[in-house]
Amino acid sequence: MTESTLQTAPVSVPTNHPTESTTPTDGPLSFDELGLAFRNRGMPLEAMASDTTPVGLHYLVIHWDIPTADGEAWRVAVEGAVGRRASLSLDDIRARPRRTIPVTMECAGNGRAMLHPRPVSVPWLTEAIGTAEWTGTSLWPILDEAAVGADAVEVVFHGADRGIQGGEEQAYARSLTIDEIRRPEVILAYEMNGRPLEPQHGYPVRLIVPGWYGMTSVKWLTSIEVTTSPFRGYQQAASYLYQQHEDDPGEPVTRQRVRALMIPPGIPDFLTRHRYVDAGPVRLRGRAWSGVAAVVRVEVAVDGEWSDATLEAPGGEFAWRGWSFNWQASRGPHELACRATDAAGRVQPLDPPWNHQGMGVNHVQRVSVTVR
Amino acid sequence: MTESTLQTAPVSVPTNHPTESTTPTDGPLSFDELGLAFRNRGMPLEAMASDTTPVGLHYLVIHWDIPTADGEAWRVAVEGAVGRRASLSLDDIRARPRRTIPVTMECAGNGRAMLHPRPVSVPWLTEAIGTAEWTGTSLWPILDEAAVGADAVEVVFHGADRGIQGGEEQAYARSLTIDEIRRPEVILAYEMNGRPLEPQHGYPVRLIVPGWYGMTSVKWLTSIEVTTSPFRGYQQAASYLYQQHEDDPGEPVTRQRVRALMIPPGIPDFLTRHRYVDAGPVRLRGRAWSGVAAVVRVEVAVDGEWSDATLEAPGGEFAWRGWSFNWQASRGPHELACRATDAAGRVQPLDPPWNHQGMGVNHVQRVSVTVR
Repeated sequence: MTESTLQTAPVSVPTNHPTESTTPTDGPLSFDELGLAFRNRGMPLEAMASDTTPVGLHYLVIHWDIPTADGEAWRVAVEGAVGRRASLSLDDIRARPRRTIPVTMECAGNGRAMLHPRPVSVPWLTEAIGTAEWTGTSLWPILDEAAVGADAVEVVFHGADRGIQGGEEQAYARSLTIDEIRRPEVILAYEMNGRPLEPQHGYPVRLIVPGWYGMTSVKWLTSIEVTTSPFRGYQQAASYLYQQHEDDPGEPVTRQRVRALMIPPGIPDFLTRHRYVDAGPVRLRGRAWSGVAAVVRVEVAVDGEWSDATLEAPGGEFAWRGWSFNWQASRGPHELACRATDAAGRVQPLDPPWNHQGMGVNHVQRVSVTVR
Repeated sequence: MTESTLQTAPVSVPTNHPTESTTPTDGPLSFDELGLAFRNRGMPLEAMASDTTPVGLHYLVIHWDIPTADGEAWRVAVEGAVGRRASLSLDDIRARPRRTIPVTMECAGNGRAMLHPRPVSVPWLTEAIGTAEWTGTSLWPILDEAAVGADAVEVVFHGADRGIQGGEEQAYARSLTIDEIRRPEVILAYEMNGRPLEPQHGYPVRLIVPGWYGMTSVKWLTSIEVTTSPFRGYQQAASYLYQQHEDDPGEPVTRQRVRALMIPPGIPDFLTRHRYVDAGPVRLRGRAWSGVAAVVRVEVAVDGEWSDATLEAPGGEFAWRGWSFNWQASRGPHELACRATDAAGRVQPLDPPWNHQGMGVNHVQRVSVTVR
């Protein structure tokens, strides 16, 4: 990183927003969407072979530009409705009790490009996932020491990343309720897979909120602001909503919906990614997760006929769970599919759950293969 | 990584190939191209702020799937027209003299999607670049110890990655002449930025050929085969050619053409990536490189008027060179551009150099900005 000091940008908190002017389309993919596909990196599904995703394969969403950060000079403000304001350096945060948690993170927009019509944003197919070992310190004790006011209702997390979205200039910000952040697994993280965060993952410090979609885990954290009224910033009140149409007030996107994905078997064609599999026994493998409750069942369908897969031991309360299925592959074309069920009784739908922003699109994955 | 042992796949060396059936098109982007954009990760241009690209931001090309590799069991065969065959473990390679080289690597197809008509492959815009510190050992002494035959003409590097391309099943393989690999900077690399290679960068060992486009630096290296006739494998004889049409025998793609890129200034719009810049002094920054000779000049154009940029000290013989330009930004729309010249007198063209496969597309970058 270069040594320029990044200023904490003042954040406007407007009370209403223009909604996204982009209308869902069945038209061709645009070059704007292509640019977002290259910036916002996906995880190739064969990386599910590893419990922990290498740093360079974890999915990435970068709304605007990656900020240039000086870790020595960085400060995280604790402010708003607190009795004792604070300004924490990276060393301050590292000196606190250390906690490492494996967390499966997914972008709320994963699967969006499979909708008809297609919401216009990062055109994810199925690759906006990853599982990392995040190390940091629990957030709540920091707020407890700051003496959160009795009238506090939310905490807003401000990032240093800044740009324009929905016609509005803004720095990234998201909020959570006080109850939500009392959970000890909500951490301020400064390491990923045992090393300092790389710039694109939020160096020097980011929030990690296990179980929630990735937009909640604010990167390049500059301020933790306790508020006495609900936050209405763009990324909270206009984006990340389950809406049926543009004017629908909608419901907020929160925890990760249940999902299973498989490693596509056999070998691919370079361009089409169509898979070719040798006839005989094939061990299908994949991962499944839910932000709501533990995964308790994964099923695999071969040509529409469902059978139970074998679950591996859980890799942690917030990490994906491995599964496998022994398939006797017979020559010809086949369609493979998988679906997960969690302990809360949630099951993946067979068809994509359409919504205006393309959020939580967790329908079953289908993989076409040619067995030869 | 999981612990399965990867077999070195037998590699067929056919003497002729079906050419790619995909015809360049001005039609809409396909979902096949989108899938390739997500798998083959780009470097967001703001990452040029760093001399060395973080592992997780370096560009990636993965022709098929990332192989699952066991570093303990891995062997690199030294075979073919040699007096003494060898089978090198990772420990054998690590025990040899150690050399670290900063190398700017670029995909030969970078810029392809800006051509009209557009060759159908990974639809790169400008992001298929990165600069890493590669650590390994020089290749030539290994071949010297193996006693290369007097009739040897080339060395073929075989990778473990396997799939179908151009209608042909194959493992990845590329060759170089004996003369080319005598250069001491051609190394077998086992570390990137001071750490063991991540799987997607070729773990456990890959070839690094500074100055050549990325397809030359074979990943997941399984065999170094000395041959007595030129290699005619698919990735050598059918792909990576400068062709004017499908039946043109073409010229092989070799060293990186001269190129400068700038960090887009100001802040972006999320969807369009259009840039907004505050009026007043703006320091434009970027990087320039050439695989043929040192970069000796970078120019910046503001609305078509060219001026010289200031060059920083070179970062190494094979690494990009920083440059900056102080711009007095006046309100209104502007177009910025940059171009590099190398010591061999090569200058970037203003317009894209069309060719059938979209190789070496090194025309000047243009960035539209609104100054406010």
